[in-house]
Amino acid sequence: MGEFDFIARHFRPLAGEGAMELRNDGAILSLSAGQELVLSSDTMVENLHFLPDDPPETVAQKLLRCNLSDLAAMGAKPYRYMLNVSVPPGRHYDDSWFGRFASGLQADQNMFGLSLLGGDTTGSPKGLTLTLTILGTVPKGQALRRDTAKEGDSVWVTGSLGKAALGLQARKNRLDDPDGTLTQAYRVPTPRVGLSLYGIVNAAMDISDGLLQDSGHIAEESHVSITLYESLLPFSPAVRRHLEQWRETILLGGDDYEILLTCKAEREDDLQKHCQLNNVAVTKIGMVTAGRGVTMLDTNQQPISFSRTGWQHF
Amino acid sequence: MGEFDFIARHFRPLAGEGAMELRNDGAILSLSAGQELVLSSDTMVENLHFLPDDPPETVAQKLLRCNLSDLAAMGAKPYRYMLNVSVPPGRHYDDSWFGRFASGLQADQNMFGLSLLGGDTTGSPKGLTLTLTILGTVPKGQALRRDTAKEGDSVWVTGSLGKAALGLQARKNRLDDPDGTLTQAYRVPTPRVGLSLYGIVNAAMDISDGLLQDSGHIAEESHVSITLYESLLPFSPAVRRHLEQWRETILLGGDDYEILLTCKAEREDDLQKHCQLNNVAVTKIGMVTAGRGVTMLDTNQQPISFSRTGWQHF
Repeated sequence: MGEFDFIARHFRPLAGEGAMELRNDGAILSLSAGQELVLSSDTMVENLHFLPDDPPETVAQKLLRCNLSDLAAMGAKPYRYMLNVSVPPGRHYDDSWFGRFASGLQADQNMFGLSLLGGDTTGSPKGLTLTLTILGTVPKGQALRRDTAKEGDSVWVTGSLGKAALGLQARKNRLDDPDGTLTQAYRVPTPRVGLSLYGIVNAAMDISDGLLQDSGHIAEESHVSITLYESLLPFSPAVRRHLEQWRETILLGGDDYEILLTCKAEREDDLQKHCQLNNVAVTKIGMVTAGRGVTMLDTNQQPISFSRTGWQHF
Repeated sequence: MGEFDFIARHFRPLAGEGAMELRNDGAILSLSAGQELVLSSDTMVENLHFLPDDPPETVAQKLLRCNLSDLAAMGAKPYRYMLNVSVPPGRHYDDSWFGRFASGLQADQNMFGLSLLGGDTTGSPKGLTLTLTILGTVPKGQALRRDTAKEGDSVWVTGSLGKAALGLQARKNRLDDPDGTLTQAYRVPTPRVGLSLYGIVNAAMDISDGLLQDSGHIAEESHVSITLYESLLPFSPAVRRHLEQWRETILLGGDDYEILLTCKAEREDDLQKHCQLNNVAVTKIGMVTAGRGVTMLDTNQQPISFSRTGWQHF
């Protein structure tokens, strides 16, 4: 199976307008007047970001949805994507695997309204490596940013926290996940595309590296301090039941792909109404103050100190 | 060295407008009215597309220039790029290596007028994997394509052929390259950006997979036949001296990154004048006729049959 056949079979059916059926080295993209493009890119590597025995459909969906989440965090609408695939030798990643991989992409293309624009296919010395570069559109000047949190804002998060971090542990057989919801959350995140929070929130980003670390990004880049309250954090029942044993995993864990927001007091009602209209839970979890860094307070209002290294810069 | 320090040290200095200093997961891009975006992406993998002891500056330049060549083939002007880097464990790809890699990118950013917009950094189980997605601009509707060659067009190529294919053999110590020009051509191609051939040529693409295979793409996608004349092919003296011994390598070899063009008779003068103005050699090497596939005729006007498999579809 040559590169051209491989592309024709699996990826051509995913190609949309401007992709020229993937027959060209380049693709062409137009923008409506008054629109800007938002771009983001994520690379996923076998055994680092997914496991070889994960269902191919969910590997595809995770790859696409991590990127969709970056668009969601900036308030952009999904438009197109580029896909680069480096395939290791061996029989595991065969036609059947890529057929299922492509069907996962197709399902999410339909759900989120975007199409494949181009990319590249190469070999890999070891491990499947996948890079997806996503393009979204946003009205000019209306992209949400992470460096615009203001003193006095409250801090909010969509959905609930910790499911994906526990799902990874469940995948490694370190905890039980009787109905599979944790594993599913790890494999197929729910990007919060479709919210229109420009003019309502001051700052936004998605939680991919964990609540504490990503709050740190907002704090650092907005030159403010953030205080989070453990007692306010939203957990699903499946997560809450593991909270005692896996507290640090849940509080530091990544892969949630929820949106972390800061909002001034006068717009809190609008934020809640807008999220309710879109069937997205949103919870106030902290405050933005003057200063630097992130502090998480436990139920006794004492700062929690975490054991993991790498957090000193908070 | 964490991911954030790594990015800050090596890649932040390369970031341009819209990249938000690489502090955001996404980047923002505007387009002037009347412009379209041209996108292309190439992945390069250690030992497949470059060798671990290649100078890091030239690895960076090859990665960027392969993509620049795709823009050149479509008549687009370089604008921005996304860079994804998957770094294997071990000491080889250290701070010093990436410092030199970034300086190669910086030199080419200055030369070709583009800047870094975003990307991602991950680990790799084995082998450095590099993906670069390039964005260029072109006046609306003026991108050159490969599926628009017409019966009666002549076929042209910029520069000269075979240097890079021989350079790869020289890298493997299979032939001598006393002044290093062949090796240099393999390591650092010269993308033909800056030509404005819209309205002059009918079809264009860059030669990355080899003259014969890429001519086949134009033929297949334009639904025409292409005849090439070996006696007309432009070779540099360094290539010509190896022609007898390495004929098939030279005729089939890739990585030239020259532009293959088709042009109707009435515009041949304009093509030659435009290329001369831009100090780019351009040579007529064949004809487009009705039919299918590509034929290369030797100096006795006999079709050359090549030993390599995979060419049957011509």
